[in-house]
Amino acid sequence: MVVRVGIVGYGTIGKRVADAVMRMDDMELVGVVKQNPDYESEVAVRKGIRLYTYEDKVDKFERVGIKVSGTVDELLRSVNIIVDATPDGVGAENKARFYEPMGLRAIFQGGEEAEVAEVSFNALANYDMAIGKRFVRVVSCNTTALTRLISAFLLHGYKIRKVRAYIVRRGADPREFKKGPINDVVFNPATVPSHHGPDVMTVIPSVSIVTMAVAVPTTIMHLHMVNIEFDGLVSRGEVIKVLEETPRILLFNSSSRKFESLAQVIEWARDIGRPRGDVFENAVIEDSVTVFQNELFLMQGVHQESIVVPENVDAIRAVMRLMDKWSSIRKTDEVLGLITEGKNYALA
Amino acid sequence: MVVRVGIVGYGTIGKRVADAVMRMDDMELVGVVKQNPDYESEVAVRKGIRLYTYEDKVDKFERVGIKVSGTVDELLRSVNIIVDATPDGVGAENKARFYEPMGLRAIFQGGEEAEVAEVSFNALANYDMAIGKRFVRVVSCNTTALTRLISAFLLHGYKIRKVRAYIVRRGADPREFKKGPINDVVFNPATVPSHHGPDVMTVIPSVSIVTMAVAVPTTIMHLHMVNIEFDGLVSRGEVIKVLEETPRILLFNSSSRKFESLAQVIEWARDIGRPRGDVFENAVIEDSVTVFQNELFLMQGVHQESIVVPENVDAIRAVMRLMDKWSSIRKTDEVLGLITEGKNYALA
Amino acid sequence: MVVRVGIVGYGTIGKRVADAVMRMDDMELVGVVKQNPDYESEVAVRKGIRLYTYEDKVDKFERVGIKVSGTVDELLRSVNIIVDATPDGVGAENKARFYEPMGLRAIFQGGEEAEVAEVSFNALANYDMAIGKRFVRVVSCNTTALTRLISAFLLHGYKIRKVRAYIVRRGADPREFKKGPINDVVFNPATVPSHHGPDVMTVIPSVSIVTMAVAVPTTIMHLHMVNIEFDGLVSRGEVIKVLEETPRILLFNSSSRKFESLAQVIEWARDIGRPRGDVFENAVIEDSVTVFQNELFLMQGVHQESIVVPENVDAIRAVMRLMDKWSSIRKTDEVLGLITEGKNYALA
Amino acid sequence: MVVRVGIVGYGTIGKRVADAVMRMDDMELVGVVKQNPDYESEVAVRKGIRLYTYEDKVDKFERVGIKVSGTVDELLRSVNIIVDATPDGVGAENKARFYEPMGLRAIFQGGEEAEVAEVSFNALANYDMAIGKRFVRVVSCNTTALTRLISAFLLHGYKIRKVRAYIVRRGADPREFKKGPINDVVFNPATVPSHHGPDVMTVIPSVSIVTMAVAVPTTIMHLHMVNIEFDGLVSRGEVIKVLEETPRILLFNSSSRKFESLAQVIEWARDIGRPRGDVFENAVIEDSVTVFQNELFLMQGVHQESIVVPENVDAIRAVMRLMDKWSSIRKTDEVLGLITEGKNYALA
Repeated sequence: MVVRVGIVGYGTIGKRVADAVMRMDDMELVGVVKQNPDYESEVAVRKGIRLYTYEDKVDKFERVGIKVSGTVDELLRSVNIIVDATPDGVGAENKARFYEPMGLRAIFQGGEEAEVAEVSFNALANYDMAIGKRFVRVVSCNTTALTRLISAFLLHGYKIRKVRAYIVRRGADPREFKKGPINDVVFNPATVPSHHGPDVMTVIPSVSIVTMAVAVPTTIMHLHMVNIEFDGLVSRGEVIKVLEETPRILLFNSSSRKFESLAQVIEWARDIGRPRGDVFENAVIEDSVTVFQNELFLMQGVHQESIVVPENVDAIRAVMRLMDKWSSIRKTDEVLGLITEGKNYALA
Repeated sequence: MVVRVGIVGYGTIGKRVADAVMRMDDMELVGVVKQNPDYESEVAVRKGIRLYTYEDKVDKFERVGIKVSGTVDELLRSVNIIVDATPDGVGAENKARFYEPMGLRAIFQGGEEAEVAEVSFNALANYDMAIGKRFVRVVSCNTTALTRLISAFLLHGYKIRKVRAYIVRRGADPREFKKGPINDVVFNPATVPSHHGPDVMTVIPSVSIVTMAVAVPTTIMHLHMVNIEFDGLVSRGEVIKVLEETPRILLFNSSSRKFESLAQVIEWARDIGRPRGDVFENAVIEDSVTVFQNELFLMQGVHQESIVVPENVDAIRAVMRLMDKWSSIRKTDEVLGLITEGKNYALA
Repeated sequence: MVVRVGIVGYGTIGKRVADAVMRMDDMELVGVVKQNPDYESEVAVRKGIRLYTYEDKVDKFERVGIKVSGTVDELLRSVNIIVDATPDGVGAENKARFYEPMGLRAIFQGGEEAEVAEVSFNALANYDMAIGKRFVRVVSCNTTALTRLISAFLLHGYKIRKVRAYIVRRGADPREFKKGPINDVVFNPATVPSHHGPDVMTVIPSVSIVTMAVAVPTTIMHLHMVNIEFDGLVSRGEVIKVLEETPRILLFNSSSRKFESLAQVIEWARDIGRPRGDVFENAVIEDSVTVFQNELFLMQGVHQESIVVPENVDAIRAVMRLMDKWSSIRKTDEVLGLITEGKNYALA
Repeated sequence: MVVRVGIVGYGTIGKRVADAVMRMDDMELVGVVKQNPDYESEVAVRKGIRLYTYEDKVDKFERVGIKVSGTVDELLRSVNIIVDATPDGVGAENKARFYEPMGLRAIFQGGEEAEVAEVSFNALANYDMAIGKRFVRVVSCNTTALTRLISAFLLHGYKIRKVRAYIVRRGADPREFKKGPINDVVFNPATVPSHHGPDVMTVIPSVSIVTMAVAVPTTIMHLHMVNIEFDGLVSRGEVIKVLEETPRILLFNSSSRKFESLAQVIEWARDIGRPRGDVFENAVIEDSVTVFQNELFLMQGVHQESIVVPENVDAIRAVMRLMDKWSSIRKTDEVLGLITEGKNYALA
């Protein structure tokens, strides 16, 4: 079966999911919904992606010479599932207005409240819970990275007493020139915990986690400083082994490979030819991995633009019952070009 | 007695200590050592500060019309104590070359190794240990802020089980245009613990502390996310009270006063007329102060340019046996214009 | 006569004009209008400035314990003149709603359209045209700086054929953490000329000027690269002399004084003790002043937060017929602490 | 004939030229010289690129498990031509030490003095002058962009009276985390003209050009604001047509395509699948193209990392007499994926 996928919202996430879907042989990208005719619309058309828009916006596209293939209604009527990658809160509106009444399945993003969906999703953590569900929410970039990291240890049988994560958020995506800050650190939020901790618990309810977050003037990646307390002693060697064999987690070495900053992680992705320089994996800084008795400390970089892309692909498969968990994760990773060397696709 | 003070190194710290010393009625600023004739030298002369330099650099000053009052030797021979505010490592060289052989007392900065001095100093934590010593080291900005915070609780009789602090460092001082990063988060260092944890223990050896640090593209303040685990339950109310009454710690409220970022803390300092917009106090974000059982979480801003200034003044007094601990702290705070309302200058 | 001044809008400009007015012995600050109770409001109260607000906002202030002295109406009824420092476009609304019907005089800022006032004002350029007028608009920071520079030459009898100015705008003010860009150069605007050229012509209609502008990720100052073509040859020496003796223009030397960047201009202002580190003057980079035949090239820094402050003070005097042009300019400069050495306060 | 190419220096430029050479069917990449084993070295090996290093550095590579194919000498002995992409000034040393004595042909980069080579090169401007030469210098990124722009008009028969260009430089490349500035505009240099003007004249000696330059806290692209005075009137329509049909120049429209900043030009390159998000073309902002009588104003973005890559490829062909000018330019553009629609590859 080839699943017919439509994408509503063609921004940072939507355009990446579109490209990913086009590369999967068990999926077909029917088209994407775009509200404004701009360079992103033009590039989509050049790539052979069909654009759909709201009826009252068709004119705007035609006026600047960008071809529209139809209206949103037309797209929705010809797909099996929607990936909704609209800005925060719009997904819930779309659900009430379109997906619910039309009986459509949909994948939402982490900007939506957990209540929008039956399951908050991360492939490593709870793929099976999304199988056959109608509405699934792929959690946000920071939550995805934390959930993967925690899952790595849970899948290897470790017991975690508590997680404390300190998040240094990028202020904006590269093209968002109106957003700051410029020379500032913003308490984002000033209150504790930030929403990330509770959000992780929508996926892994059993974990005790507190998070704090600030935003800084960068556009490239988030940075997490993580402190995990295990039930019992662990060794650095064990931790490295867990991280090495867990899919979607990569180790970047500062001393032997000179990864001394997040920009160098991105540079690596550009150099190896990743589309858009994307880093789909958690970028764990190997030299930071430190164990004191039962406490683990580490830093990880989180590429906010792309980390949820493989999760969206897997979420489609789970909802559409296309494949079992590890088959889907492996297929997604292989097709998208994630590093698969040494990874164990049969954990737990 | 009026102590005759000389300052070697007239950069970010040195020029502020110079201004502070000039305002103290128990101290006299004899002069400062500067290596290069530039706008800072010119401003010093305009303020009536005598410049001294190395013999082979006198010419450089004269050529551009900046008056030099004498050589370094001449300055050193006419002071009771030196504040060495030279770049990292130069202080140790100066000690061996000048201060030791000349029998001079000296205050060093946190860029030097702890071994340069008999005591690593923070006024709240261990003023008494510096009394009458010959060489004292004022710890660096981040260490000073952590030490003050920990001392606040120790002085109030709390027992601390452990401290975990996550430091988001400013990349450079405002005028350091050659230093980055521009759009990056640097693992600084990638290894754990960063030097800050061990450095705190040079002042408070009994504390169990681990720190991690990254650097970001800002010039204004460091930001700490701190997690303190107490021996036993604490309440948020108690914590707030401790912070309110401890000198050199200020609470900034995000919800009622709209302190939503570090730049607004600096803006406040500019608005109330602080010289150079300096924030001599730990800037604790009140809304971030959160307690879960025996764990405290909070954020604090650390003004890297000025936070050690009051500590240098107190260190001079301790070395010169001018005054007891709380008299010195209070006097320094009053003269420099720190907020003294509600502060208890007779803790412990 | 002491003029009773009220200030509507207490942000970046308003709070600086308030401080300036308080320092003038021919003016009295009756109070300021503030819409939100925040740290700026609290600082104002601490400084003894009376706060006024809209009737429906009094509660908000009282709830967080910040004292309000009355309503906007009450303030407006007790002043001779208003300085309106509200955000772009609000000044025009205030004029229609309050100042016109109440017969009040008002000074507007450059964010308003020129039509809001009878005269677009710069003290050096056209002080006399504002004498006795009811509504005067102090042009924006970039326009003020360009107007001063052009006036310097016109006041010395030079004929200017054309001016081409290339403006590198700071992206936001220091405390505006929501505004970007972070890692970008924004075409602001993409079209030519930017509004600055035409805006200069509202003050000096005879000048032929084209401007282009981009915005960059800084918060400290604007930077102008200026190309002036004179009617006939000029020498660098003449130009330097003109700039040296024109009030409100300062030369910063890169080679002898190490002013190598805008941040060092600000550092100088912090070091000499300017309130908030303000630079009221055009900061012309001396080493950039270059003449090829009849063409002059130079760079100047423009401190967006403070450059219009002296102009607002002078505008009040002109409207209220307090003093003649050069007396006002000199008095403003002396009281605010601008550099007056070598300045000629009797040009043209 | 397939030319055997070696690359000395495998950084920002070197690695891109290596990738480009590998894609050309008339060239073979023999290997690259790298001094340090890091992630760039590892990626090169993964791509099948042979690494060569200095004899005393072989150990360093072996110690961290990165394979070296031989020493620099070995590489040099097996190539027809070297592209030297080492840091500023090292190229000249390499020439004296290796290329001259070994009788090797070499292409240098713009960081070298013009004297290092017989010709300073830009394909549009002076391809023919490099034919058969032994040492050719591809001018730097900013100079390349200015030279292309000027050539566009010269190739269409326009007479240029003078060019004035105002350059807003990116502070560092994306991965250079040690370089600033962070919150500053640096006079780079403070003097006029900056080196770019004279450097353009090494390629097009007849043009009268003055340039000024500052550096800002961005890593993505340089921005030029250009003012060209023609001998006689021109129309905007003509200018647009010239730019549209000149190879290696692209128009980006702000109003119809929402290119409002440089980051959006890069976003476009990422979206269309350019390797590393590279923009090999001058990115002229269409809305900025403005003509007043005989004066043209426009803005262009210059991707410092990649703009010289096609020029290096063409320089190899010219030196090796592989092809005539327009055949080479066209082939380079087609293979590297530059936009060729509407371009005229038979100008002048």
